[in-house]
Amino acid sequence: MGGDFAPHNIVMGALAALHETNNRFHVILVGKEREIKRELHSAKLKNENFSIVNADEILDMHDSPTAVVKTKRNSSIAVGTSLQKEGKADAFVSAGNTGAVMSAGTLILGRIPGVSRPTIGTFLPSEKGMCLLLDAGANVDCRPQHLFEFAVMGSIYTNAMFDDVNPTIGLLNIGEESTKGNEVTIETHKLLSNSNLNFIGNMEGRDILKGVAQVIVCDGFVGNIILKFAESIPSFLKSRFKAYAQQGMFKKIFIGTMRGTLRKIFQSLDYEEYGGVPLLGVNGVVIIGHGKSTAKAIKYMILKAEETVQKKINEKIAAAISKTQNEIEVVTV
Amino acid sequence: MGGDFAPHNIVMGALAALHETNNRFHVILVGKEREIKRELHSAKLKNENFSIVNADEILDMHDSPTAVVKTKRNSSIAVGTSLQKEGKADAFVSAGNTGAVMSAGTLILGRIPGVSRPTIGTFLPSEKGMCLLLDAGANVDCRPQHLFEFAVMGSIYTNAMFDDVNPTIGLLNIGEESTKGNEVTIETHKLLSNSNLNFIGNMEGRDILKGVAQVIVCDGFVGNIILKFAESIPSFLKSRFKAYAQQGMFKKIFIGTMRGTLRKIFQSLDYEEYGGVPLLGVNGVVIIGHGKSTAKAIKYMILKAEETVQKKINEKIAAAISKTQNEIEVVTV
Repeated sequence: MGGDFAPHNIVMGALAALHETNNRFHVILVGKEREIKRELHSAKLKNENFSIVNADEILDMHDSPTAVVKTKRNSSIAVGTSLQKEGKADAFVSAGNTGAVMSAGTLILGRIPGVSRPTIGTFLPSEKGMCLLLDAGANVDCRPQHLFEFAVMGSIYTNAMFDDVNPTIGLLNIGEESTKGNEVTIETHKLLSNSNLNFIGNMEGRDILKGVAQVIVCDGFVGNIILKFAESIPSFLKSRFKAYAQQGMFKKIFIGTMRGTLRKIFQSLDYEEYGGVPLLGVNGVVIIGHGKSTAKAIKYMILKAEETVQKKINEKIAAAISKTQNEIEVVTV
Repeated sequence: MGGDFAPHNIVMGALAALHETNNRFHVILVGKEREIKRELHSAKLKNENFSIVNADEILDMHDSPTAVVKTKRNSSIAVGTSLQKEGKADAFVSAGNTGAVMSAGTLILGRIPGVSRPTIGTFLPSEKGMCLLLDAGANVDCRPQHLFEFAVMGSIYTNAMFDDVNPTIGLLNIGEESTKGNEVTIETHKLLSNSNLNFIGNMEGRDILKGVAQVIVCDGFVGNIILKFAESIPSFLKSRFKAYAQQGMFKKIFIGTMRGTLRKIFQSLDYEEYGGVPLLGVNGVVIIGHGKSTAKAIKYMILKAEETVQKKINEKIAAAISKTQNEIEVVTV
């Protein structure tokens, strides 16, 4: 029931995912049964491998994130997440309230042993392809150990999902030297330097779009501001180009083509092609989509969820975190 | 001697400023006398209202910011700043090492009474015109009181320099509600709400380019990352448009026009038109320019410095800070 176009886009996306994979997996549609059935009634694809679990409550953007485990235990987010806890599902996909999905994931599924804080990543475009920035808003006040764990999880996710053998990790900062930054990044730099991650050092704001690192680590406060700033660039440019067009510097046809191209350049930011972003560090697979997710985006999110399960990302994270803890203990001794 | 094109661009910019204002003020060129004289020798404008003060040392980008008051007291930054302290100049303009200019300003001139931390602002374009973001990198770990003072100084500067009666102030954050954000912004929101500033509340990353506030307040860590990210957008778009051109989606002529327009849209970011950024909160007038400042940029910086002196920005900041302190005391009692 999550997102601006639920349940229509969700149901259509799920049916498309099943159809395209010849029902390789089973989808449980969680939400108001009557509304889901109404969607199914008008759908073209009807005989796919799905079932319905009823969840009566709706958790919307105005609810506090923790309402999902307090007052709205019968929302589709709480019920859907619980199916994983009960062993009835392997992954949960939602276009609902991000904070609530994060809370449900963390509180219902629990954390992977050794992970202090689960993190939400986001994909950003760059001159060298997509990069993964984390944290994108889940954790605002972070300690160095948290940022270090984000780097570990981001490295494993990128390695597994994009077949990069040893993804480069950059620490978002305000200078290249290890002594630059705030208290948290200076300490984090030491942790990353002493790890066996492919740490390339500090990177500045100007390095993000250049693609100097495949995984960009920062706290959720900085990450969220960068993400939303980046998302706003196309509409800003559109408005500026329009202003120049009115000054006669441009032909209208020019603007049209330009807008299409700008949309392509930043398209990954609307998650459609990238199938949502992972909530990393919880004991399960949770994929979070944009509230405006199209059916196509939902389809990709489901395919991405399946891939995340198949590639055993969580087992790899658990092993890596445990390994770094041993290393840190050895160093400490 | 500061910046990548010193002393040539500096000398040319200074002569142009004098020439265009009919020598309304006097410029003291501070730096290696021989090199300055060589520039003057080849200059067309020679009979303007300037003098030279020799400063033998060069402080470059590799020096620590505090070297300016420790080991390199005879650098043009240290000598130039000291001229103000000695009452021989009313303002100091530099395209040199930003950290060093900031250190010299703070340590040689001292702070305006009541100001905890001097701040460097930066101008960003928006759909509604330029806005001033501060801090842009001078202060990385800030307390709520610091952010509050940045808001006061930014408001006064914008009011005086752009004739806005009561500039709008936005607090850069990750949600609109007053409870959103990290520990520092939640506290800062309270201080700003209780002030008589024109505080519009929290703003998100997506609101910067929309121009929802004329003054944007954040710590220097976030501000610097946003500034540098924004500066990198034109070259990223250029590279992306090129890629699309190679795919045949674009004609080359298209790219050319586009590039020119993009440059215009982001041109303010190179400081040229805006005459550098102010170091606010020090006992004097200090204008900092980009290391790549053109002669035109230097000219505007000097004109901006004169205007800052004329408009008595510092007296206004001192009065406002003292007023807010009284208000806070009253509230506390």
